Amino acid sequence: MMSGMRATEQTGARAPLARPVVSLVGAGPGDPELLTLRAVERIRSADVILVDRLVDARILSFARSDADIQQVGKSRGEHSVPQSEINRRLIALARAGLRVVRLKGGDPFIFGRGGEEAAALRAAGVDVEIVPGVSAALACAASAGVPLTHRGDAQSVTFVTAHAALGTEPDLDWPALARANQTVVVFMGVGVAPLIEARLLAAGRAGDTPVVIVENGTRLNERILRTPLGALGACVSGEGVAGPAILIIGECAAHGDVLALANARQEIDA
Amino acid sequence: MMSGMRATEQTGARAPLARPVVSLVGAGPGDPELLTLRAVERIRSADVILVDRLVDARILSFARSDADIQQVGKSRGEHSVPQSEINRRLIALARAGLRVVRLKGGDPFIFGRGGEEAAALRAAGVDVEIVPGVSAALACAASAGVPLTHRGDAQSVTFVTAHAALGTEPDLDWPALARANQTVVVFMGVGVAPLIEARLLAAGRAGDTPVVIVENGTRLNERILRTPLGALGACVSGEGVAGPAILIIGECAAHGDVLALANARQEIDA
Repeated sequence: MMSGMRATEQTGARAPLARPVVSLVGAGPGDPELLTLRAVERIRSADVILVDRLVDARILSFARSDADIQQVGKSRGEHSVPQSEINRRLIALARAGLRVVRLKGGDPFIFGRGGEEAAALRAAGVDVEIVPGVSAALACAASAGVPLTHRGDAQSVTFVTAHAALGTEPDLDWPALARANQTVVVFMGVGVAPLIEARLLAAGRAGDTPVVIVENGTRLNERILRTPLGALGACVSGEGVAGPAILIIGECAAHGDVLALANARQEIDA
Repeated sequence: MMSGMRATEQTGARAPLARPVVSLVGAGPGDPELLTLRAVERIRSADVILVDRLVDARILSFARSDADIQQVGKSRGEHSVPQSEINRRLIALARAGLRVVRLKGGDPFIFGRGGEEAAALRAAGVDVEIVPGVSAALACAASAGVPLTHRGDAQSVTFVTAHAALGTEPDLDWPALARANQTVVVFMGVGVAPLIEARLLAAGRAGDTPVVIVENGTRLNERILRTPLGALGACVSGEGVAGPAILIIGECAAHGDVLALANARQEIDA
């Protein structure tokens, strides 16, 4: 129970586990201060950590100095290590009695393929613990000061991914996403920003609908841009948005004052 | 920078702030281990904390022994302290140079009225820091082992609230919510479970669509129930679901094995 938070136990393996178990841990959006206490404890006590490219390197500083950290390089659906090999490694390591952490950016159950990994592990007789994390959607909204729901502006919020197989279109319900009075958060949408703009406008969303783009959210190189929906594609290309980014589309995106937020944090941290 | 995590500084006020600032902090779903490091640091250094009824009491144990903790009792939209009075207090306390934390269940920007409080503070010249939290939706999904998105099952996830003014219906787009291949997460839906069932079925959602109900998610009295959509109302009344609960509706809700998840955590924590 949070022992890892009080002790400074940075080295030394704990006793092997009697049953094969994997912790599927949400690493949050990037900023290590947005890790949960349980995530920190799991990282600190891990013998081995399989980590995606989207996980910020500062987060791994919580690991034991003798922990085996394996980069499996998954990023935007491209795997440097194939999913089947990731599953195979997790199963073998867990069966060896090791404390295995599978560390995923954001929350493992929001576009993280956590459900697929959990199913593969369970099918192999490996129990899985899920440690939820702060989704990039929530963290980017906080960075921009943009509420995802707001009386009068948005009664609901929908998370979608615009990632699609090469050469295909994302399979999204554009008419439903184009309705007013809701917030749409797009993961992995930067590469297809002109398509998102075109499809939402064609489905009836107003061209002056506010959009916030949060690139590298909560990381040291975070950048926040604002554009009307009708200029989304031009904004992404004109500003050279290239890092992982979240798009927040809807009336709520008109809120927020990034400078005031930054001033507030600076004052509190001083 | 995480100084509060290393020191054990449970008493003693810090220097007053030079500018009026409030931290709007997501307290997560209930389990204190799901607090972020930044949330813990803000709670530890607060002079005064205004807290909603939905925030778990264990979380307040991180506060300084001499902190002024004010219960403002907001729960399901009913305020024991009116919103205007909450805003007035936050502004006055911040102007007095105190370290003020406004602690809200889950994430402040998902059905937390955080946007409204931030706007009121900013209008009064008080800067606001937003500390995102683990939304109850994500934590309940993790507890139940239910991924909110999953290849083949759900390309998107929508969060809605079923809360409505007394005697009125929630203003929701039922046809959009009734489409297959998506997950719908309903906040504050227990009281209107029969209505949700009826409206989604009328809009064409299949009666055998799986639903998971997570009552008191991540708290010591957490309860997880499974039902087909066509028996949602009967399940809620038959099982006497009365606490704060999240409904997860969609094909994804067929996943998960609560016993295996509990076994996994027990093994790791041992």
